[in-house]
Amino acid sequence: MLIEGVQAHLTPKLLADKKILITAGATMEMLDPVRGITNISSGKMGFALAKVATQMGAEVTLVYGHATASRPQVRHAYYAGTAHDMYQSVMQHIADQEVFIGVAAVADYSPLVSSDQKIKKSEQTLTIELKKNKDILADVASLPNPPYCVGFAAETERVLEYARQKRLDKKIPLIVANRANLALGSDNNSVILIDATGDYPLDTADKTTIAAKILTHLKHQLN
Amino acid sequence: MLIEGVQAHLTPKLLADKKILITAGATMEMLDPVRGITNISSGKMGFALAKVATQMGAEVTLVYGHATASRPQVRHAYYAGTAHDMYQSVMQHIADQEVFIGVAAVADYSPLVSSDQKIKKSEQTLTIELKKNKDILADVASLPNPPYCVGFAAETERVLEYARQKRLDKKIPLIVANRANLALGSDNNSVILIDATGDYPLDTADKTTIAAKILTHLKHQLN
Repeated sequence: MLIEGVQAHLTPKLLADKKILITAGATMEMLDPVRGITNISSGKMGFALAKVATQMGAEVTLVYGHATASRPQVRHAYYAGTAHDMYQSVMQHIADQEVFIGVAAVADYSPLVSSDQKIKKSEQTLTIELKKNKDILADVASLPNPPYCVGFAAETERVLEYARQKRLDKKIPLIVANRANLALGSDNNSVILIDATGDYPLDTADKTTIAAKILTHLKHQLN
Repeated sequence: MLIEGVQAHLTPKLLADKKILITAGATMEMLDPVRGITNISSGKMGFALAKVATQMGAEVTLVYGHATASRPQVRHAYYAGTAHDMYQSVMQHIADQEVFIGVAAVADYSPLVSSDQKIKKSEQTLTIELKKNKDILADVASLPNPPYCVGFAAETERVLEYARQKRLDKKIPLIVANRANLALGSDNNSVILIDATGDYPLDTADKTTIAAKILTHLKHQLN
């Protein structure tokens, strides 16, 4: 904690008084009270961004789901366990935010029907019908006066191509592309920042260092 | 650790040299490299049983899945992240076991198809076809010379009725019934032991205490 305090003290206050909303962790869409569909996410990358942004002087609002990493101290923190809850929480706190960084692994689909009671298994096969969830990042980016939006693209193949397309589809200025199989759960990350001016690959580093570089990059875009 | 050492020293060696296999935690059935279907389980109850059984002198084999609780030191520990892996691991280590305690929240169904690459979302709805998994507890109980089998029934309604039926269906001597919504993730548990001689409700207590009572109960059944 002492080292973190010193580190915080030494971090340039690049984002002094900037209001930043960050989502982190994974959502879980319940099929019944005990079973659900989730995404693999430790929460490490989102938590690292929240920690470093706070050290840089930002007023951070963190909306977090399921995570195994330990959550940093930030100004405002709200738990949201499902894609629906996360959407609601983000929309409730998005006014006045200058930056939105969507790191959470939000479920794209959720069950059409969620049972109040534990489903009793009997059949040899089971079919689950899912409906598409609202897209938090795209909806934030299309607000009348949107914050500067940063998305993450965790892909398993054609990483750059998919990430570039995702940036255009969601109409966001900056996207962070990485390989899902390398990034998820790992302490390290290897990412490429993609904005309108081009691609910026960062050296593989721990997620705190990556977070500092992402925030420094976006700070220059804000000015 | 010191306290645990003292506690271990003071615990009667009720299960000296007994070989016990315990499953704990949750499985996760992957839909693609980043998404999966899982069960809510912290691993606390299974880990408490593994810890206390070790303190009682048992030679514990722990087969564990996803868990947020910290895993105790036991003689043998094997990770199994999916229902299939857990089945394989249990069957590989079940010979010579005198007791089998199935605490893990094992997925009853897994996807018919699991994609090697991240599924790209496009449709408004999505249907997932699932197939039933093999039943670890029932298959262990029906081995030619089975260990003493203990099951857990985490139910949300008609707890006693479902638990009694599960004990009969799986042909196991002892089942531990609890309310899923109270037990899952909690440090405490309130359970009812059900065997051929009747129902034995235990006082609500921390999971270590519950573990000790379950193991003491089953010890008497072994003799």
